[in-house]
Amino acid sequence: MTYTLEKIAEQIGGVISGDGSIEINGASNLENAQKGEIAFLSNDRYIQIAKHSKASAILVHRDLENIDLNVPTIAVENVYSSLADLLSIFNNSYHAAETGVSDLAFIHNKAFVHKDCHIGAFSIIEAEAIIGQHSRLMGQVYIGKNVTIGKNCIIYPGVKIYGNCVIGDNVIIHSNVIVGSDGFGFAPMKDGSFKKIPHIGNVVVEDNVEIGAGTVIDRATMGSTLIRKGVKLDNLIQIAHNVEIGKNTVIAAQAGIAGSTKVGENCQIGGQAGLVGHLKIADRTLIQAQSGLTKSTRKEGQKFYGSPAIDYDNYLKSFAIYKNLPDLQARIRELEKKLDALGDSEQK
Amino acid sequence: MTYTLEKIAEQIGGVISGDGSIEINGASNLENAQKGEIAFLSNDRYIQIAKHSKASAILVHRDLENIDLNVPTIAVENVYSSLADLLSIFNNSYHAAETGVSDLAFIHNKAFVHKDCHIGAFSIIEAEAIIGQHSRLMGQVYIGKNVTIGKNCIIYPGVKIYGNCVIGDNVIIHSNVIVGSDGFGFAPMKDGSFKKIPHIGNVVVEDNVEIGAGTVIDRATMGSTLIRKGVKLDNLIQIAHNVEIGKNTVIAAQAGIAGSTKVGENCQIGGQAGLVGHLKIADRTLIQAQSGLTKSTRKEGQKFYGSPAIDYDNYLKSFAIYKNLPDLQARIRELEKKLDALGDSEQK
Amino acid sequence: MTYTLEKIAEQIGGVISGDGSIEINGASNLENAQKGEIAFLSNDRYIQIAKHSKASAILVHRDLENIDLNVPTIAVENVYSSLADLLSIFNNSYHAAETGVSDLAFIHNKAFVHKDCHIGAFSIIEAEAIIGQHSRLMGQVYIGKNVTIGKNCIIYPGVKIYGNCVIGDNVIIHSNVIVGSDGFGFAPMKDGSFKKIPHIGNVVVEDNVEIGAGTVIDRATMGSTLIRKGVKLDNLIQIAHNVEIGKNTVIAAQAGIAGSTKVGENCQIGGQAGLVGHLKIADRTLIQAQSGLTKSTRKEGQKFYGSPAIDYDNYLKSFAIYKNLPDLQARIRELEKKLDALGDSEQK
Repeated sequence: MTYTLEKIAEQIGGVISGDGSIEINGASNLENAQKGEIAFLSNDRYIQIAKHSKASAILVHRDLENIDLNVPTIAVENVYSSLADLLSIFNNSYHAAETGVSDLAFIHNKAFVHKDCHIGAFSIIEAEAIIGQHSRLMGQVYIGKNVTIGKNCIIYPGVKIYGNCVIGDNVIIHSNVIVGSDGFGFAPMKDGSFKKIPHIGNVVVEDNVEIGAGTVIDRATMGSTLIRKGVKLDNLIQIAHNVEIGKNTVIAAQAGIAGSTKVGENCQIGGQAGLVGHLKIADRTLIQAQSGLTKSTRKEGQKFYGSPAIDYDNYLKSFAIYKNLPDLQARIRELEKKLDALGDSEQK
Repeated sequence: MTYTLEKIAEQIGGVISGDGSIEINGASNLENAQKGEIAFLSNDRYIQIAKHSKASAILVHRDLENIDLNVPTIAVENVYSSLADLLSIFNNSYHAAETGVSDLAFIHNKAFVHKDCHIGAFSIIEAEAIIGQHSRLMGQVYIGKNVTIGKNCIIYPGVKIYGNCVIGDNVIIHSNVIVGSDGFGFAPMKDGSFKKIPHIGNVVVEDNVEIGAGTVIDRATMGSTLIRKGVKLDNLIQIAHNVEIGKNTVIAAQAGIAGSTKVGENCQIGGQAGLVGHLKIADRTLIQAQSGLTKSTRKEGQKFYGSPAIDYDNYLKSFAIYKNLPDLQARIRELEKKLDALGDSEQK
Repeated sequence: MTYTLEKIAEQIGGVISGDGSIEINGASNLENAQKGEIAFLSNDRYIQIAKHSKASAILVHRDLENIDLNVPTIAVENVYSSLADLLSIFNNSYHAAETGVSDLAFIHNKAFVHKDCHIGAFSIIEAEAIIGQHSRLMGQVYIGKNVTIGKNCIIYPGVKIYGNCVIGDNVIIHSNVIVGSDGFGFAPMKDGSFKKIPHIGNVVVEDNVEIGAGTVIDRATMGSTLIRKGVKLDNLIQIAHNVEIGKNTVIAAQAGIAGSTKVGENCQIGGQAGLVGHLKIADRTLIQAQSGLTKSTRKEGQKFYGSPAIDYDNYLKSFAIYKNLPDLQARIRELEKKLDALGDSEQK
């Protein structure tokens, strides 16, 4: 599809400088853009790259509106938000056509599937499950007994949701995610073996959450594991039983949150980071990738690094010296020598 | 369902203090319990919380039997073991009804499925596979050629078991686990490419093992990757080819064990920990979360921390100083200055 | 099956010392080999073990050809390469029989499936997808709209490939791998929420790649996430959007590569290692397990360790002192005392 720059500016709410009548057939980044495509410039560090880009138009932050990039621009307030709108325009969907409820799916006769749903082949919808309006369940999905799925959700192939879990509206769950598996809870017995503690709780995922491929969210022992509104989870994340993730918190791939930890709102947790169990983390906490948080935090907006994690700046200061520990040791040896020499001369 | 406290005490084998005739309709923890529910108190630190709980009864350790918690109690020797029994009573199962072998499953005509099994829709049971009595395979499971599954197993949706693997009795395998994928073994060639080494071995999972969602256990190059009796694996764990995990060892989420490492019995390995290949780990070894063990251990019951991992206490002592390395460096600088000053005064 | 040693030597291209007429019925390692089996010796450290092995023949490096191991040997130039060939001979396949396209698969009428393919039960092949000659898709696989799969691929049960992705020839993808899920990209909004950035790119996996079980490769925001020829990925790895992995690079289990990072050719990345986003990594770089690389590298063949990662040898030197930081601190305290004493005596 092709759109005039004017049409695009209108749809994403931006201000054109230059010729609005040119035609745009796709979007790309500055380096890879071809003639006919629109690219984006979010940061004045890339102005030189922008000037040499082959793009036919550039989406820019309005502070950069007056810089001459040799091609027409659309100026906006939030480049990334407008980029999201822009890509929606050119999103030549990779989704298969929606065809209603597949004859090849198994829908229990006691399940409630809204008539405006897509249920792909080889999916299983168990008894008492509810699938909300306009939700799209791709093929090979498993929706357990008494699960509720809200409206406008996208559930990708291979997702498995155990019984009694609740998914809100506008939730996106990527392939092979598991929601509601039993938590890791066992009673140690005298003979060294472990007795399984049944998990009678569930998982509640609120509205507007996105869950990345292969991520696992365990059900609560009792009560609910809670993923609050607007949370974004990347791929291959472990969320243990009875965890709560606060509103709009984002967690990068392969991070793990141990049992019963409560993470605040608007936190950012880096990739491969780990939080031990039973912590309480304040809002807007930042945890660097690969860090291991072992203590609760009260003050909002703190930044942590290391394993065990400490204050981010302090970690970097200590690490700067760590890298030179052999020097430090040599200096101590030198001091010892000198002091010995002094001691000797004193004794003379 | 509702039970008298008396009935519950009888079933879990505890001793009542107070009115055994009250009716209990569910179980919860001290903070969230509602009237009519039974909570549990495992630790005297939580006595004040217990006194303010809305629970109608409390399961307590027998050492706490004589403390007045304002409500009737059931005293037991092992609170977590009795909690497991208690939750079994109230486990309003999230499992779908068992309906025998689904017409929508593919069962190879050379597979042996015991008549008292449940095989869910869209499962595949290949030739020569054996499924033992009372085992329940949920939907969308793949059981490869010549796989043996014992009795009373629960295999959740999406589990894939490659050919020739052997699963014991009473094994629970959560969704999307993979058992028997090829190990990561390649012969480096002169041109920089790698030639695949075929993996002709298998995986043997013994009785009473539980495997968490999304975990992967690779088959052996030759011989067997071994998961011994009673092992409990959490979610998203990597077990490489030819690994052996000893009896009753528990491993937390996202840990990884590299090829040919033999872990002893009753070990505990923390989340995101890693063990390099070809190690031999003594029984009852404890490995802290995120640690990286690089050496074999001979003495039983040691505790490790850090990457590379060292003795737990030593790691913490070193880390306490690491946090203050800038101070340490400043003290060295101060010493150098003073010594220089002394040196100067000496020379005068 | 049984083969004479002579026949085996002929097939793998090796030189026999001893009786070539003996019969061999399997392959194993030195410790576990039984009479009738052939084992292998790659390293002169294991000569004593080889001498006590029950193996009836041993595959050896040609430098070890003249050592008497009490049994006939086959000498070869690259033991691991020849072992791969040897195991192929004895690979009593764990694969189910190939039966063409299963009646129980869903093949869209606009998909192009080569007539010499195997498509297992409960697989979904969406519109415009192309499946190349001799490719084997096991059961429960999802191939999205407009995906291309080359020739001679093996796609194990449960693999999900999102629309528009491209897979080359001779690619092996293990169970439950996800290729083409949306990258983790969101525009932060003023109210603290996040707006999804559509991902209109794809993933391109070139020839001869192997992808381990449970690994996730996200699609590009725009353009392609690229896995170059001969790359070998282990299990549970995270490859983020717009990453490029260079030719013949191998990555061990649970490693993660953040968005837009370009890894060079013939690199080796250890298990649980992490690379932050937007890096450029030189060819033949070695990254130790659990390390966290935070900076681009220019020089080829460097080795890194630690989190953040620094030069491997420097890390080990610093770590050796780290382990003894309490000693170092004590020495500084001692120096301070001595210097104070000196200072005092000076003042007298």
